[in-house]
Amino acid sequence: MEFLKATYLIETPLPVDDAAAVLAGEQSSGTFVSVPGETAELRERYAARVESVEPLEDVDSPSLPGCRAKGEAFHRAHVTIAWPAHNFGPNLPTILSTVGGNLFELSQLSGVKLLDLEFPESFGEHFRGPAHGVRGSRRATGVEGRPLIGTIIKPSVGLTPEDTAAMVKVLCDAGIDFIKDDELMANPPHSPFDKRVDAVMRVVNDHAEKTGKRVMMAFNITDERDEMCRHYNELVAQENTCAMVSLNSIGVVGVKEVCDWGMLVIHGHRNGWGMFNRCPTLGMGFAAYQKLWRLAGVDQLHVNGIANKFWEPDDSVVASIASCLAPMWGDDPLLPVVSSGQWGGQAFETYRRTQTTDLLYMAGGGIMAHPSGPAAGVRSLQQAWQAAIDGFTLEQAAKRYTEFGRAVEKFGRKP
Amino acid sequence: MEFLKATYLIETPLPVDDAAAVLAGEQSSGTFVSVPGETAELRERYAARVESVEPLEDVDSPSLPGCRAKGEAFHRAHVTIAWPAHNFGPNLPTILSTVGGNLFELSQLSGVKLLDLEFPESFGEHFRGPAHGVRGSRRATGVEGRPLIGTIIKPSVGLTPEDTAAMVKVLCDAGIDFIKDDELMANPPHSPFDKRVDAVMRVVNDHAEKTGKRVMMAFNITDERDEMCRHYNELVAQENTCAMVSLNSIGVVGVKEVCDWGMLVIHGHRNGWGMFNRCPTLGMGFAAYQKLWRLAGVDQLHVNGIANKFWEPDDSVVASIASCLAPMWGDDPLLPVVSSGQWGGQAFETYRRTQTTDLLYMAGGGIMAHPSGPAAGVRSLQQAWQAAIDGFTLEQAAKRYTEFGRAVEKFGRKP
Repeated sequence: MEFLKATYLIETPLPVDDAAAVLAGEQSSGTFVSVPGETAELRERYAARVESVEPLEDVDSPSLPGCRAKGEAFHRAHVTIAWPAHNFGPNLPTILSTVGGNLFELSQLSGVKLLDLEFPESFGEHFRGPAHGVRGSRRATGVEGRPLIGTIIKPSVGLTPEDTAAMVKVLCDAGIDFIKDDELMANPPHSPFDKRVDAVMRVVNDHAEKTGKRVMMAFNITDERDEMCRHYNELVAQENTCAMVSLNSIGVVGVKEVCDWGMLVIHGHRNGWGMFNRCPTLGMGFAAYQKLWRLAGVDQLHVNGIANKFWEPDDSVVASIASCLAPMWGDDPLLPVVSSGQWGGQAFETYRRTQTTDLLYMAGGGIMAHPSGPAAGVRSLQQAWQAAIDGFTLEQAAKRYTEFGRAVEKFGRKP
Repeated sequence: MEFLKATYLIETPLPVDDAAAVLAGEQSSGTFVSVPGETAELRERYAARVESVEPLEDVDSPSLPGCRAKGEAFHRAHVTIAWPAHNFGPNLPTILSTVGGNLFELSQLSGVKLLDLEFPESFGEHFRGPAHGVRGSRRATGVEGRPLIGTIIKPSVGLTPEDTAAMVKVLCDAGIDFIKDDELMANPPHSPFDKRVDAVMRVVNDHAEKTGKRVMMAFNITDERDEMCRHYNELVAQENTCAMVSLNSIGVVGVKEVCDWGMLVIHGHRNGWGMFNRCPTLGMGFAAYQKLWRLAGVDQLHVNGIANKFWEPDDSVVASIASCLAPMWGDDPLLPVVSSGQWGGQAFETYRRTQTTDLLYMAGGGIMAHPSGPAAGVRSLQQAWQAAIDGFTLEQAAKRYTEFGRAVEKFGRKP
């Protein structure tokens, strides 16, 4: 028998073994009394079982409201639950209901967070994983030996297709590898998708013809299903290599279908992720999250960045990058997308802590607001990464490279 | 100009007006520095604006980690943000990215929860809302003047199609209105969807032919898109009236497509909802949540129940029922599905507090584990609701009705 395993952080006033058993019961046979037809044999073959329990610290008060169990203290533990894989088969949304369903409602728990997943070997036959992950993204852009450098067209709202194409031209000329729409920009009346793609792809295709370098455009196709399909096909027809989707807003079924179409690199934006992860004792951790999106086939996934403008600590960002790049199955891992308040200044710490260049390194304001303009902004990022790889410090790099030096003057010595 | 409005609970050490402005900025033009091309005119026409700020209490310590702003105390407020509707148009996943995207990551906030939404009038032309809500569910089952009584086939795992059909026969004969699969039961090898539907629909169709009463079967079609489509068509071909989907596991794009097919009542299971809602200062409240699913076209939505087995307090359940039944657009509201540890005993308090019978009232163990068997279980629920509507107390009803009396003996005087 094959098993799907999920590891949780739980918090409970009950003995942690008992609470783990409640969780396993709820997520398999689950009702509040025994029912006719529920035999020992059925339980043996289909019930979820507690695989391991690792006690952690106690806390004095419950993290979440609504815990109805009583006890002297609230015990924390890591628990791993195992489900017979034949219960659901390779049905991605039902897998999600199994490992992330009603269990968050349990009144025996005062905290419950899904931390990690381990899939049965046979899932590899059904779920191919990222079709164009790290290696696919490098092949499509021709970038080797350094991170892909990317940017976001800003402002997010209000630009016409022609304004956008003009910015893309500047960025192409500056040597950018990747440009994405903002996640709030899909198909608004002031910049209809078709017109934006026409205008921008003329620039991208011209540039590719002249220079041999094809810039990857992550147009945001996030929409209802038939619109996504139409927009996807249009991107393929215009020789673009990528589409962007807002993962949480679309959901796993829509995202998996888009990935299954197979022709474009799928850039996964994780907006809304804070809702799942920012509470330390509820929701989902990134290790589990990125595995679910790998099953769906996502190629690139946002991980925030070092010294980001959001709430996330650097340690968490570093761990996220490592989990995207860890092998799962298929031969191509998920490309981590570093963004949020980034400019060249963070290249040094990012490289020091991750020791990888398998990144899509994104800067919005860090490129567009460079004091010498966007072209200098792109160059400053390339310079910073080259310097980081070559072992220079930020200060040394600022002296060595003009554009990066000017970025340091504007954005400060400390990222 | 039309606006989409969203109301949040925020918590912040900054003046609450400033924090609200940060939220509005992040969710429209959002970058950390001003960029070329961002004009006053563009901001006027496309930027989100703060509509209202209603200060609440202060708290001493931050609810969530990662707040980087400094202040003497953490101020709470309700804030309403308004977006020009032309920014996204009727694009449901992009609406979700707008009202529920990166804002949860803001380091200026130590708490942020989306509480409610107000859609522009014109959305009613694009989103029809529930096609078969309260009235559609009543029409399909022929039930008037009382709640629909439903149950879940248990155990969730291990039963063969024949076992399931035999249970359905007992329940049909007992006068049940509605039967659903468990959310963990989709298309497993031991009970393939096709065989289960064949075996069960023979029973349901026979019963309908003999008695004129068609029991509504919420078969769980939760799966990848093409499988959902195939299973949906099979249900239509076999004259079933309903399909069940795990909303959060599928996502809004998949769910909207299923609803748009239009022929079946869509029973929306909210498993995983605790992840969004159980933290008081993060995520999403039910009022906003049910509106998003109404936009997608969901007909029936789980709301938990009075004295449920989960963590949720009764007040929250009562508010959820009211929000499902409040008018939005279309002429048919969302049918609230009451479940979790329910038996006839909760009918009295449920009716007293909601004063409605527009409910699908579900009991699993409360029916299947009735001491005189499932048939008596169904009758005990019908009796309890009739007694509640007629103004009797639980004690009076227990004396008046044999099967309900036996339920009280087994499940206790207090739900």
